[in-house]
Amino acid sequence: MSDRRTAILEAAATVIARRGVRGLRVEELAVEAGVSKALIYYHFEDRTGLLRRTLAFVNNRAERYTAEQSAADAATGAAPASGPLRRLEQALLLELQDLPHVRENSTAWGELRASAVFDPELRGELALASVIWVREVADQLGEVRPTAPEPALVASAERLTALLEGLSARWLSGILPLTDARTRMREAIGVEVAHLARHTADRSADGTPTSPNKLD
Amino acid sequence: MSDRRTAILEAAATVIARRGVRGLRVEELAVEAGVSKALIYYHFEDRTGLLRRTLAFVNNRAERYTAEQSAADAATGAAPASGPLRRLEQALLLELQDLPHVRENSTAWGELRASAVFDPELRGELALASVIWVREVADQLGEVRPTAPEPALVASAERLTALLEGLSARWLSGILPLTDARTRMREAIGVEVAHLARHTADRSADGTPTSPNKLD
Repeated sequence: MSDRRTAILEAAATVIARRGVRGLRVEELAVEAGVSKALIYYHFEDRTGLLRRTLAFVNNRAERYTAEQSAADAATGAAPASGPLRRLEQALLLELQDLPHVRENSTAWGELRASAVFDPELRGELALASVIWVREVADQLGEVRPTAPEPALVASAERLTALLEGLSARWLSGILPLTDARTRMREAIGVEVAHLARHTADRSADGTPTSPNKLD
Repeated sequence: MSDRRTAILEAAATVIARRGVRGLRVEELAVEAGVSKALIYYHFEDRTGLLRRTLAFVNNRAERYTAEQSAADAATGAAPASGPLRRLEQALLLELQDLPHVRENSTAWGELRASAVFDPELRGELALASVIWVREVADQLGEVRPTAPEPALVASAERLTALLEGLSARWLSGILPLTDARTRMREAIGVEVAHLARHTADRSADGTPTSPNKLD
């Protein structure tokens, strides 16, 4: 990807986090990116094309947190997260860090998602990104609980990722302290992993899956 | 509250849901409410006063869902939700209904919260509303699990309410079908209630509280 194209996408994420999708003006974006308006239209055709590429850019940047953290651990000699449960916790908690790029990325994501309430043009991309993320977390849960049934893993992953978005929104808007958000997230992972263990044990006892709503 | 004051607050929730807090213009609000701009300033002094009252209005309206549902059940002769667990489920699932006023209310709440990311003026009210909601859900969980320790009830309530906000945001933006959002929410209540039962049992066994992160 060209440097100037990347600069435009970085600036678009910044402006969307600050002003929302509805507040994104190509004039302000051009100033923020230090390029001409013409270059923006050259690279992205129209507003919809720009928003779609920004969504993908924001999404890819979030995926890179994990890789960066692993590299940073290696560089400082810190022990990498070992065991599937620690890796899962680390991956989810990376989104609850008080770092400017994490704040900006999560805020921009929230604004892009909110724009889809009235404007359907980004819904396909948003739904696909969500499905891929849920799939990744389900796979990580499957490494922690290898005998848990597939639908239970996906349901747990959907709850954990939706909870993370809910906690992140409360933290970003100053409603919930970051340490509380991280504690709630860590607890939720423990609760879901224990639930999957029980689910598996119940299932293996008589061969029939147990309703996840079953109460003791 | 005067009819015209209520009309202004209803219109403010509508405009904020549609355009965001940043997109709220007093001209458009006056047209939507069918009143003069002067009357808006007479009732709410300034923009901050208007936003604070709108937040309280949106919050009170959400609290009324439960009362309206109970009244509707009584009117149609439907059996009211019986037992603390059913009442808890019903209260939380009322926010995941495909009704125009629920959609509008949740969307307006999300926009008001998002506005607090860069503008701290509503943070105090948002945090208070959140604390009150968490307290109510913790009390309902306490009716289901009377022997669960207080901090565990509050932590479960904080997770359930944050999850509901996360699922609601996905549903409203067209990423997650409503039936899936409702299923995930119902499952989460079951998982948390089972967790609280285990927590209680572990605690009574040797008198020391068990870490909610404990893995089997």
